[in-house]
Amino acid sequence: MYVGKVFTPRLLWHFARRNLLRSLLISVLACVLHQYAGWRWLGISFIPIATIGTAVAFYVGFKNNQAYDRLWEARRLWGGITNNSRTFAALFISLVPDKALQREFLYRHIAWVNVLRLQLRKTIPWATGREHLHQTFLGEKHELEQFEAGLKKIFGDAGTDEYFVMLRQRTNIANHLLKKQIHELGRLKRAGRLDAIEHSDLVKQIGEFINHQGGCERIKSTPLYRQYSIFSRVFVVLFICLLPFGLINEMSKIGAHGVWLTVPFSMLISWVFYTMEQIGEFSENPFDNSMNDVPLSAICTTIETDMREFVGDTEMPAKAAPLEDVLL
Amino acid sequence: MYVGKVFTPRLLWHFARRNLLRSLLISVLACVLHQYAGWRWLGISFIPIATIGTAVAFYVGFKNNQAYDRLWEARRLWGGITNNSRTFAALFISLVPDKALQREFLYRHIAWVNVLRLQLRKTIPWATGREHLHQTFLGEKHELEQFEAGLKKIFGDAGTDEYFVMLRQRTNIANHLLKKQIHELGRLKRAGRLDAIEHSDLVKQIGEFINHQGGCERIKSTPLYRQYSIFSRVFVVLFICLLPFGLINEMSKIGAHGVWLTVPFSMLISWVFYTMEQIGEFSENPFDNSMNDVPLSAICTTIETDMREFVGDTEMPAKAAPLEDVLL
Amino acid sequence: MYVGKVFTPRLLWHFARRNLLRSLLISVLACVLHQYAGWRWLGISFIPIATIGTAVAFYVGFKNNQAYDRLWEARRLWGGITNNSRTFAALFISLVPDKALQREFLYRHIAWVNVLRLQLRKTIPWATGREHLHQTFLGEKHELEQFEAGLKKIFGDAGTDEYFVMLRQRTNIANHLLKKQIHELGRLKRAGRLDAIEHSDLVKQIGEFINHQGGCERIKSTPLYRQYSIFSRVFVVLFICLLPFGLINEMSKIGAHGVWLTVPFSMLISWVFYTMEQIGEFSENPFDNSMNDVPLSAICTTIETDMREFVGDTEMPAKAAPLEDVLL
Amino acid sequence: MYVGKVFTPRLLWHFARRNLLRSLLISVLACVLHQYAGWRWLGISFIPIATIGTAVAFYVGFKNNQAYDRLWEARRLWGGITNNSRTFAALFISLVPDKALQREFLYRHIAWVNVLRLQLRKTIPWATGREHLHQTFLGEKHELEQFEAGLKKIFGDAGTDEYFVMLRQRTNIANHLLKKQIHELGRLKRAGRLDAIEHSDLVKQIGEFINHQGGCERIKSTPLYRQYSIFSRVFVVLFICLLPFGLINEMSKIGAHGVWLTVPFSMLISWVFYTMEQIGEFSENPFDNSMNDVPLSAICTTIETDMREFVGDTEMPAKAAPLEDVLL
Amino acid sequence: MYVGKVFTPRLLWHFARRNLLRSLLISVLACVLHQYAGWRWLGISFIPIATIGTAVAFYVGFKNNQAYDRLWEARRLWGGITNNSRTFAALFISLVPDKALQREFLYRHIAWVNVLRLQLRKTIPWATGREHLHQTFLGEKHELEQFEAGLKKIFGDAGTDEYFVMLRQRTNIANHLLKKQIHELGRLKRAGRLDAIEHSDLVKQIGEFINHQGGCERIKSTPLYRQYSIFSRVFVVLFICLLPFGLINEMSKIGAHGVWLTVPFSMLISWVFYTMEQIGEFSENPFDNSMNDVPLSAICTTIETDMREFVGDTEMPAKAAPLEDVLL
Repeated sequence: MYVGKVFTPRLLWHFARRNLLRSLLISVLACVLHQYAGWRWLGISFIPIATIGTAVAFYVGFKNNQAYDRLWEARRLWGGITNNSRTFAALFISLVPDKALQREFLYRHIAWVNVLRLQLRKTIPWATGREHLHQTFLGEKHELEQFEAGLKKIFGDAGTDEYFVMLRQRTNIANHLLKKQIHELGRLKRAGRLDAIEHSDLVKQIGEFINHQGGCERIKSTPLYRQYSIFSRVFVVLFICLLPFGLINEMSKIGAHGVWLTVPFSMLISWVFYTMEQIGEFSENPFDNSMNDVPLSAICTTIETDMREFVGDTEMPAKAAPLEDVLL
Repeated sequence: MYVGKVFTPRLLWHFARRNLLRSLLISVLACVLHQYAGWRWLGISFIPIATIGTAVAFYVGFKNNQAYDRLWEARRLWGGITNNSRTFAALFISLVPDKALQREFLYRHIAWVNVLRLQLRKTIPWATGREHLHQTFLGEKHELEQFEAGLKKIFGDAGTDEYFVMLRQRTNIANHLLKKQIHELGRLKRAGRLDAIEHSDLVKQIGEFINHQGGCERIKSTPLYRQYSIFSRVFVVLFICLLPFGLINEMSKIGAHGVWLTVPFSMLISWVFYTMEQIGEFSENPFDNSMNDVPLSAICTTIETDMREFVGDTEMPAKAAPLEDVLL
Repeated sequence: MYVGKVFTPRLLWHFARRNLLRSLLISVLACVLHQYAGWRWLGISFIPIATIGTAVAFYVGFKNNQAYDRLWEARRLWGGITNNSRTFAALFISLVPDKALQREFLYRHIAWVNVLRLQLRKTIPWATGREHLHQTFLGEKHELEQFEAGLKKIFGDAGTDEYFVMLRQRTNIANHLLKKQIHELGRLKRAGRLDAIEHSDLVKQIGEFINHQGGCERIKSTPLYRQYSIFSRVFVVLFICLLPFGLINEMSKIGAHGVWLTVPFSMLISWVFYTMEQIGEFSENPFDNSMNDVPLSAICTTIETDMREFVGDTEMPAKAAPLEDVLL
Repeated sequence: MYVGKVFTPRLLWHFARRNLLRSLLISVLACVLHQYAGWRWLGISFIPIATIGTAVAFYVGFKNNQAYDRLWEARRLWGGITNNSRTFAALFISLVPDKALQREFLYRHIAWVNVLRLQLRKTIPWATGREHLHQTFLGEKHELEQFEAGLKKIFGDAGTDEYFVMLRQRTNIANHLLKKQIHELGRLKRAGRLDAIEHSDLVKQIGEFINHQGGCERIKSTPLYRQYSIFSRVFVVLFICLLPFGLINEMSKIGAHGVWLTVPFSMLISWVFYTMEQIGEFSENPFDNSMNDVPLSAICTTIETDMREFVGDTEMPAKAAPLEDVLL
Repeated sequence: MYVGKVFTPRLLWHFARRNLLRSLLISVLACVLHQYAGWRWLGISFIPIATIGTAVAFYVGFKNNQAYDRLWEARRLWGGITNNSRTFAALFISLVPDKALQREFLYRHIAWVNVLRLQLRKTIPWATGREHLHQTFLGEKHELEQFEAGLKKIFGDAGTDEYFVMLRQRTNIANHLLKKQIHELGRLKRAGRLDAIEHSDLVKQIGEFINHQGGCERIKSTPLYRQYSIFSRVFVVLFICLLPFGLINEMSKIGAHGVWLTVPFSMLISWVFYTMEQIGEFSENPFDNSMNDVPLSAICTTIETDMREFVGDTEMPAKAAPLEDVLL
């Protein structure tokens, strides 16, 4: 999650590079042809282009809305995981006084949270955005290459390495951790350590975790429908390419050299439209290792701290803080 | 679900064929009449047409919103089926240690998921979109002609052919599979293998499946209200037909041959509006064997894998991958 | 629910009659006065009128959104009734093996569904739309005049005529049928045929039916707020009346006879705006015996079929199909 | 709730008085200065004003959306109260055969519904809209002055005057009635007349009533955020004041006396914008004794009728009907 | 929550200071250069600027929508806390007759509500809005500097100072208070003072509080996504800077001195756009000690009053009222 508060040149550059160049080229070309080659017919009326502009602004607005909703739903799902973790832990501790069992269940829960985080950060080639856009962030900050190492560490921390060996074969490890929780709750019930209602309530909490996990996987594996997102980009680029031709005429009314104002104005207007489009594009995949991701690491740390404080640990993981204005 | 990331000529063609031709014809005709027949009155003002354009863009945006919501709701419903399948399976396994019973229930569940998939892919003549649009996809990739064969295979795989004979008479087979699950749960309770709370919790899970199935059937049997969707198309076509007449005038201001710019500009602008309309049109039926469908086969495979891993099977169905940029 | 897929002249006529005539009259009058009476001042600028047009298009879009939401909520409510009927029936059958009791409860449920349908189709004079618009459909296809006859048939089919006599005095018969279900469930519990949890779960299902019924009644008795819907119509009509005066000027620029183009263009543009408004108007009451109603009869038939198949009946009601492109 | 179906001059007057006058004054003044004082510079271009117009129309549309949502949420809450009242009553009657107890609980429930109605109609000075707008309705039709008398009557009708004496000291009487219900349900459980599950289910129903009451109080005590609603009005008034200056120029193009068309057109356009704004303003407080309120009295009557029919009463309150097109 | 009903100069100033000055400077500069330096080319066409204006108005509308939703969700969460507090208290009192225990639980609940309030008002540097904007309110009215003092008072009032010492070390004190509630409920169950169902129902209420707390923390720690909010401001400022250049030309058509009208009109239009943007900006953080915050103190007082009346206290906290039109 990007948390910078001001508009920095770096941000500008990040969002605009390619487009500014394209816009510069087209508008300069248009002006040169108009002025020196005498192709006056390049200077068409602005009004039809304004009509496209309005329609495109609608369309982009619609897409941004959907992208925002995806991001916010993802955030809500992880908020739900946080809340339910607290309820599950507090309830379990109040019902099962055995400290060792408490630790076993809550450490397994912490493992699940972290495994889910790693799984969500894996790249699904056909579902991710265009990779080259996230390259700079991919290269340095994320934990992906170390997926196995990460897993190993999680289970090592919890002192259950044999688990890791067993689970790594599975398609969906997080899934099996939750199944294990339900399984162990069933065992506690049969052993008479949980009554029917207590067991039912605790299982319902795990059911919620399954729902949250499934919700995240749904967002991850269902990119913003391509028919919507591709054409958003195509329309904006089309509008940007037509823009200089609509401006030439308006600008040439000012006087001899007015035509050259087409260049900066093309760049400005195209920048506004292109940036609007990019904002949605950069937000549509909330689990894509980009700077606008849901801050999974920070949330996992919060959950881990809560669990450990509940169970009486004194050593806590370091609190997550934004790094270079990005909270991971 | 279409998962291509770039704008291909194939996509362009798929969405635009008929419209580009129509736009070409009308605009050429308008220009010829304007230039050679001297019908200057064809060149009307662009401003009223821009007003229609704005209103139409609103209307299409509204329709696209509804189409998107239908698609996303359908996806959420199948996400819900995935999640609940996991909870149901994990809970059942933890409560009923008998391996044979576990297999019976989970295989019946897999059967339900697949039968529901086939049922949703059947065509309801009055509820589907215009068939000729999906023809290319219909002919090759879907499983529809083999509905009976598909059903037979599902029950054959589960080793319950006698079931197939019994059920094929029913109006809604998926329905009866869920009823059967509830019935068998009742039997387990009477046999003392589930207590009151366990039975209640498991039945609630089946109740959720009934809700998910009903939700999908609702979307399938209630097309996007025709009063909304028909007029969206009609308005766009009307706008497209008026467009060249509004452009002629603006273009003729440029100079002698400027009028002919009406043709490419008509085609461009009409393409933008027509495509916006088509995007919604192609998304409004998420269970229609089109390239934008919810990827039912892929989701069914995921659920089957989860169920089989839970119950201890080692042989898994192949993981679904997009074929020619379409994930079915 | 209208299920036609193409734009027919009948549909055009249905939506547009009065408006086309009005638009024709005003624009002809304006042209005559402008041309022959020399009232040049009738030809005002189009730009202020375009501003009204944009604002009105917004407003109508907002209203259509609300109308669509009402329609879709109504459809969801009946989808919910369908789903819950299946869960209730499957659960009841699995818990109470007595065939006679099963029949009694499910037939009473079928009665409730159909009584609710009839009640929702009754006209509340102050809550309905303008009656004359639905007249053609009112006269032929609906079941309203036969409300009593319909009720009698429902109870006759279920072999409980004495019930009909008792209930017809009540304000809200559907209500009392659900109360009766809860009452009988209480009796079964006291008789030891349902345990505490089973009773609670079944009662919750009936509670859901009460919610669904109440939701439908809320939509039925709370028309789309009149302050919103009246002004939508007024604004559109105002815009349509101003339109010709804005067009005259633009059209007269073309040449001598160009002014007369005002007539067809006024009619076209006004048709677009008027139709947008009408679409919402025709959708806002989903229980109003109009062609855009939720297809209550079809849904009731589906539920009845489900119930009867579950309970082992072999004779099924005929499947509902659209009649003249309308599914009732 | 206003239920009139046509646009009456009374409605027009109600919504427009002040604005029409203001618009008349400004535009006449502008025309006089432009024509007789020769202040030609008053006639500015319409295009920048159209830009403001579009932005303002957006903003007002946004506000109206929020106002509508508040109204509809309030209506849903009272729909929820209706539904839950039925479930609660039917369940209670089926579980507790004692007629006297049934009467006691349901009459207390009727008391709660009516007390809540009175409490919601009390005016919170800082949360209400501008009082002078509702004056005509305040003076005649509502029950506010008689708050104490109303309360007394409610408890008198239920034969529990001693209650009234006790409760009138409390901050929130409705609150205490629900607490009393939960308290009495606890007593019934301890007396062995309700088992654990029955008690839990009935308490959950009361919990729902607490949620509904709290939802209504939230809407009542949190007016539509002032930062949003104040500026909506300010922007519209600003636009209306600028309008004549933008029109003068356009109108003066027609000819000598064309300028005077500025007056009627200013009034028309300003009326459209002002009315849009007012519609939201008049809807934003659904519990404010205005003509657009949720019809609390009618809903209370429906609930009372349901309760009394369930408990076997024969005397019913008169059915509510709209009075002068307003349903209270 | 700001509750003033009219538009005051103070409000104007609060929202507009910096922008009015900037707009004044740019437009005066533009006019001077245009008139005296003869830079006629500064007077560009307004139409491209109008296109930017429309796109920007869309974008700002979108952002305001999200900001409003955040504010309203925060308000709903606290509404939920109010409702659940009542249900929890009423249920607990009805189940546990011991007055001392009632006091202990409800006082702990009051402590939780107030601790949560203090925690939400703490500033998270990277998540808050730009601090200097809220400075005037920060300095005088809020309770932040006294966080520790506030905590101490809360626990002192409840007579549990030893608690305070223990809890102040924890990361999230509110969290631990809820965990304590669940823990004590478990103890009451083991002591036989709550049966299984009662315990389960009460724990579910605490689970709801955990959800509400988590929801508030999610909104607090996830500012409106910066990619959306930063560019909203940048686009508006860009539009405002271009505005005078688009107006000069339009205004100079009026006559010699018309150009100077650019200054007031630039200021007016820029004020409209800037204010729209600011409204969202000022609403996006509902727990930020600003004048548009959710009125936490008032809601806490309501809850405390409810709790104390339920438990039989006679001394109540003073009812919260707006101070200088702000309800805290």
